[in-house]
Amino acid sequence: MAQLIEIEDPADPRLSDYRDLRDVQLRESVEAAEGLFLAEGEKVVRRAVEAGYAARSFLMAPRWLDGLADVLGRTDAPCYVVSEAFAEQVTGFHVHRGALASLHRRPLPSLDEVLDGARTVVVLEDVVDHTNVGAILRSAAALGVDAALLAPRCADPLYRRSVKVAMGAVFSLPWTRLPEWYDALPDLGARGFTTVALTLADDAVPIEEALAGVDRVALVLGSEGHGISDRWQATADRRAIIPMAAGVDSLNVAAASAVAFYVAGHSAG
Amino acid sequence: MAQLIEIEDPADPRLSDYRDLRDVQLRESVEAAEGLFLAEGEKVVRRAVEAGYAARSFLMAPRWLDGLADVLGRTDAPCYVVSEAFAEQVTGFHVHRGALASLHRRPLPSLDEVLDGARTVVVLEDVVDHTNVGAILRSAAALGVDAALLAPRCADPLYRRSVKVAMGAVFSLPWTRLPEWYDALPDLGARGFTTVALTLADDAVPIEEALAGVDRVALVLGSEGHGISDRWQATADRRAIIPMAAGVDSLNVAAASAVAFYVAGHSAG
Repeated sequence: MAQLIEIEDPADPRLSDYRDLRDVQLRESVEAAEGLFLAEGEKVVRRAVEAGYAARSFLMAPRWLDGLADVLGRTDAPCYVVSEAFAEQVTGFHVHRGALASLHRRPLPSLDEVLDGARTVVVLEDVVDHTNVGAILRSAAALGVDAALLAPRCADPLYRRSVKVAMGAVFSLPWTRLPEWYDALPDLGARGFTTVALTLADDAVPIEEALAGVDRVALVLGSEGHGISDRWQATADRRAIIPMAAGVDSLNVAAASAVAFYVAGHSAG
Repeated sequence: MAQLIEIEDPADPRLSDYRDLRDVQLRESVEAAEGLFLAEGEKVVRRAVEAGYAARSFLMAPRWLDGLADVLGRTDAPCYVVSEAFAEQVTGFHVHRGALASLHRRPLPSLDEVLDGARTVVVLEDVVDHTNVGAILRSAAALGVDAALLAPRCADPLYRRSVKVAMGAVFSLPWTRLPEWYDALPDLGARGFTTVALTLADDAVPIEEALAGVDRVALVLGSEGHGISDRWQATADRRAIIPMAAGVDSLNVAAASAVAFYVAGHSAG
């Protein structure tokens, strides 16, 4: 059973996991150094704990205690009970969903583990926006993608905002970091995946055509700004495009991923 | 040519269009009362002006003046030149893209005008999140949807965040508000559209099936929380689902819309 601890001093060092949540750079370095991540909202907190992540602590207003009683009953981590105004003061933003948890990260699984039995995977190169990473993982889980692989510079799926947008998919969908960037796509090819890069390149073929008859597929998505790197464009087996109306900007990467996952699910070999 | 005006007092009343941009409720009432909307970032500001929206004023740091010189050259609206720190103080957030414009809203077009010649339209019931509204409009424009119709309570496409996420699609895609909610779908039926509601209802059929052979289609999307209202579920011609993996939360409405637009574009009758 979690120990309930009322805290009245915003400077209390026990709150350090929850400070300045709007400061992305600070948070990235704190979370990496401490090996922690944050879950926000009753539903996401529950899913994180049910997925086996060990809590370091919880922070919530009294009215959230009942809803999370089952979760708090199964942990020895402290639960800091504070007013909503106090929580806002510490975190720097209005905690809409009232409950926060700080959890221990775990070692990432190996590529072998993540790819075991997978037929459709998504590979994210340098997607930099946490909202997009979360949205892509959520759509991947919903649309039957088996796993996600992240290039070394892709944004962190366990960053608070990614976790929130993914609605728990970050805990259910197998994912890991690619061990290296340069030969990542040829390495996936050697493992039996046809790598299909979503791109606006001139030689890209419509995605339905690119995926037709493919057995194991790795759908590759690039950064919001410039898409996929030249190296990855050159080493992907196929280059695919989602046909778009003339004169229109490209789709947002999260929207493009949803379409690609749907098409992959309907054209399996 | 816009008149460049340096402002040094953050309380200057000429800056009232730009105050407290993080306060959604305040902004909604200010913008409705004044008949204004904001565009953020060089690209979006340019598109708004090119789309014919008249500027009330501009607010930017000196380094953005050159990039927008052509836009400023074609208007008589004042351009307030301030430091980036000053802009942050007035607006309440860090203006990443450096340039803001306040523009006059225009009367919305009639339903007849928006539907003229349209074959595929999207109908948004009570989508409440501005990011989702913007993302849906962007995907609609990219994937060949001809127009968007918004129920009376759907979030504002001209809210700053919607405009930013839509990347200008809010200026290029024809859209308007539905005159009323209760009979909106039967009215579209009377205009020759088959109304297809995206829902998780038990009797929903896979979307490819729901759209097969349909001539003019109105794709209907509901709110993030509870989806489409009972009234609209009951009055839609068809109920469609995007098939999803077992045990997974539904797709985000923006992701679902992208899939639906893609399928509609590939199954036109």
